[in-house]
Amino acid sequence: MTELPSYRARIEPDWIDYNGHLRDAYYCVVMSYAVDEVMDHLGLDAAYRSQSGCTLYTVELHMRYWHEIKRTDELSVATSILDADRKRIHAACEFLCPRIEGSAASAELMLLHVHQGDAPQVVPFPQEVALRLESLKLSPQALAQRGPGSRQIELKRR
Amino acid sequence: MTELPSYRARIEPDWIDYNGHLRDAYYCVVMSYAVDEVMDHLGLDAAYRSQSGCTLYTVELHMRYWHEIKRTDELSVATSILDADRKRIHAACEFLCPRIEGSAASAELMLLHVHQGDAPQVVPFPQEVALRLESLKLSPQALAQRGPGSRQIELKRR
Repeated sequence: MTELPSYRARIEPDWIDYNGHLRDAYYCVVMSYAVDEVMDHLGLDAAYRSQSGCTLYTVELHMRYWHEIKRTDELSVATSILDADRKRIHAACEFLCPRIEGSAASAELMLLHVHQGDAPQVVPFPQEVALRLESLKLSPQALAQRGPGSRQIELKRR
Repeated sequence: MTELPSYRARIEPDWIDYNGHLRDAYYCVVMSYAVDEVMDHLGLDAAYRSQSGCTLYTVELHMRYWHEIKRTDELSVATSILDADRKRIHAACEFLCPRIEGSAASAELMLLHVHQGDAPQVVPFPQEVALRLESLKLSPQALAQRGPGSRQIELKRR
């Protein structure tokens, strides 16, 4: 298992809401740019996209917020590949701040490899990308040691 | 069951990404502002927040993307209260465009009522808000008719 480089976010002043912390949705904005960097690393960069007509579409996203992030925090996002098949990537992101022990937030994503055009169609990854994904997949041990992930959201009565 | 007013979004040009559609994270931004309007409707508005020191924190969010949203789409968000207890709200959002049949995206959120300060603490809603939430909760019939919601994200082998 090799590792993806971690993404360093810049927190914009107008991402802070009336609660004095990073607005919930801007965790998702940060993650979206982190995934763009992962795409570059996988070989799904702008050159690939324009030459092939293919890209990634997000079909599902689950975010769990553990800690408030403040304007002055240094924020980075570490992405892991939990699983992948011929056309899909199941990824996880951990939001890290030096001030905070553990993750500030944890997320999971499902991404599809899509050929755009009049009727977008899910298509297989090129072989190099598939091999890169295979080499990046978390080991069963690492998967077993992960913290809480996506789940059905519900009010459990206390 | 009464209904919450639906939120009308304005899609900003820089929310459109290199794929030519609304970037995944901006569905979350739109939803975040829709929830702000819901807070106003519930009586958790700016005046309440400054007077009480209380607000809502998002602790969990699950988004499912069904359709691409384009720059020219009219977009609105309809929020429902799936469940609520003394301190928590489980809400659902449907993203609607006249161009698209059904939802463009569906989301679920878990929100906590928090008293801010040096050590933020989860506290009960004021009685008026609790009563309003109770009157807004979806009926068991409406709950049963809902489409797919939050769940564990995983690659099911085909």
